[in-house]
Parts: sequence; structure tokens; C-alpha cells
Amino acid sequence: MEALPSKLLERTVEEFSKLPGVGKQTALRFALHLLRQNKSDVALFTSTIDQMMADIKLCKHCHCISDSDVCEICSNPKRQKDVVCVVENIQGLMAIEHTAQFTGVYHVLGGVISPIDGIGINDLTITQLLERVEKEGVKEVILALPTTMEGDTTNFYIHRQLQRFPVQVSTIARGVAIGDNLEYADEITLGRSIVNRVPFDSVYKNN
Amino acid sequence: MEALPSKLLERTVEEFSKLPGVGKQTALRFALHLLRQNKSDVALFTSTIDQMMADIKLCKHCHCISDSDVCEICSNPKRQKDVVCVVENIQGLMAIEHTAQFTGVYHVLGGVISPIDGIGINDLTITQLLERVEKEGVKEVILALPTTMEGDTTNFYIHRQLQRFPVQVSTIARGVAIGDNLEYADEITLGRSIVNRVPFDSVYKNN
Repeated sequence: MEALPSKLLERTVEEFSKLPGVGKQTALRFALHLLRQNKSDVALFTSTIDQMMADIKLCKHCHCISDSDVCEICSNPKRQKDVVCVVENIQGLMAIEHTAQFTGVYHVLGGVISPIDGIGINDLTITQLLERVEKEGVKEVILALPTTMEGDTTNFYIHRQLQRFPVQVSTIARGVAIGDNLEYADEITLGRSIVNRVPFDSVYKNN
Repeated sequence: MEALPSKLLERTVEEFSKLPGVGKQTALRFALHLLRQNKSDVALFTSTIDQMMADIKLCKHCHCISDSDVCEICSNPKRQKDVVCVVENIQGLMAIEHTAQFTGVYHVLGGVISPIDGIGINDLTITQLLERVEKEGVKEVILALPTTMEGDTTNFYIHRQLQRFPVQVSTIARGVAIGDNLEYADEITLGRSIVNRVPFDSVYKNN
């Protein structure tokens, strides 16, 4: 990119281009956009970020991002505390929450085991999960991690660690998506959906 | 999008989604990315923006973004002050600057006349351009505005206003891009490039 006519602008472009998926051109568009706004609006933009960084917490039970020490889900008396759904991150939590089909609580791992990215067991909240299972009388742990090699590795590791507790371990159903044609489903998904077929009655009694 | 588990996060996502071309999902990715960074790195991000908003100036000659009252181009004694290239915005300036073919100075209009967007003559730096031409003995004004209806309208307006001064008005050449096949050039460009054909010698003596 051409040299910018202002160091102040250049530094802002540099900062914006550290955001994921933002190149120099997009960063320049963002910076010039801010320059066209009222100063008070841009001050709100930066102070909102500053406040988030200063005040945001992780829920001490589920490790989800929260405004208080215990998140809204964990502090909700209507949620089943003995059914814990393990998710990789907050996006996974939000996706499940959005279905309105889950009434238990969550445990946010903060990633999956990935030696190639330098993410090991101690970078995740696995120890805290085991503690919850041991001390809080958890009856069921539902693994809802991504179906990648890293997700599977993490699944297996957590499953093995949980065997010493009297807890049921399940994983979310994988299969052909509702509305999908069989001919377009990938072989692994379709194969697994035949092996793990479910009784017809069990599907329709839940709907 | 699903409700977020934190108001602090939600407000940051809202602020990010005000940036051009940024939807809620991208804004969430930006916000979660910041949460994974060191607090000092994020503080640098916001303070850099705050500093830009506080200290950036417009060059009093060309109205380009600048760190000082007179920009680097206008204060460069090697630049011809009597040849002024009129551009829509800083991106246009940077594109021409990047060619290293122009040794004059610029005038940044800050937009083009566009009634539909509520941009009139008084929102642009046209009056300031006329003042420069009148007082600074400008010999040539080169119009380098976009070839849109709005750009053309602005070109015509400026051209008419400049007729009362002894100044040469030119516009950048439009034609088939170098390296382009004729069969892929649009008809208007190709048609205009035939009408405005140039003597063969004049092209090659400059290269």
C-alpha cells in the first residue's frame, strides 16, 4: 500500500489491520470512516471497548464471558445444574442456547486440544470441568465440541478422565441435517448416521 | 443473532458493527478477538484511535489529512505549486501519488456533488479551490474525479466556475487500460478512447 500522508492515520490503520480478516485496505476504510464521524461517537467506540476490557469477567462456574462473577445461565434457578454441556467457546454456547432445546448449564473449554497450535490440556478448563463433576453432583456431561480431529481428541480425553466419576457422558447427535438431500451429504456423516440410527418412535415423541 | 451473555460484549459488538461492511457476526469475531489479547495491546488499539481523533488535521492548502497544518506534499519545495490536481478523497490522492508521475500539488474535495446523498456544493472544498486558483497563481487544474454521474456533475460545475480565471483546466485521460484486450473493454470507454485518440509520438516521448 502507498505511504499514508499522516502517521496518526497510519498507526490507526496498523492497529485495525491486527483484527482477524482485516487487510490494510479495509483497515484504511475503517480509519477514514472514523475520521468522518463526530468525535463523541468515536470516543464512545473506544471507551466501550476500554470498558469491556476492564470490567468483563468469566463466570466462575462455566467460564463463559459474563458481566458478573456468575453468569445469567448459571444463576438461573430454572436451569438444571446437574446436566453440563461442554462447548469449545462462547459461539458454540450461543448456537445451542439459540435452539431453546437445552435446559441444563454449560462449561466453556476455551478451545480444543491442538498441539499444532500449542493448545494443551492446561490451556483449557478441563481440570475445572472435572472438579465440577466431582463436587457438584453432575449427572450428565454432553460433549458438543466441533467434529474436527482436535475436537475428537478433546472428546476422547475428557471421556477418559470422566470414567472415574459416576456420570453419564453423551455427545450431540451427528447426522444428515434436516432439509438436506442424502445425495449431497458427505460419506462420513451419512455412514455414521446409518450406524447410529435411532428408533423411529424416539424422534417423533420429542417433537 | 442470539442474545449475548454479556452487556459489555454486546455494546462492543454494536460499536464494531457501525464500521462499514461489518455485520454482527464479524463484529462479534472482532470483540472476541480483543478479549483474547493482552489488555495493554487493546489499550494501545483504543488510545491510537483516540489520539488520531484528537490530533489529526486537514492541510490548510489541499485539505488532505495531515499531522500538521501544512501537509508533506504542500510543504515540499520540489512540488509545483501552480499545478493542482483535484481528487475526491485521500484514496484518490494516494492512487495518483503512487504512480510517481505527478509533481504538482493536490486539492481534496471531500466528496462529489450528489443530491441523492445530500452532498451539495457547500459540503465540498470547491470555494477553497477557487480561492487557491485566484490567489496562488495556479496555472493548471487537473480534474481527477471518478467517472460517475456525480463525478461528471462535479467536473462540469468546477469547470464552469474556473472559466473566470486564466487557468488551464484538464482532466485525466480515460481509455482502455494498459494490458486490457479491446474485446473486454466496455463500449463507452472504447468509444471515448477512439474519439479522444492521441498522436502516437506524444505517448512514446513520455515513456
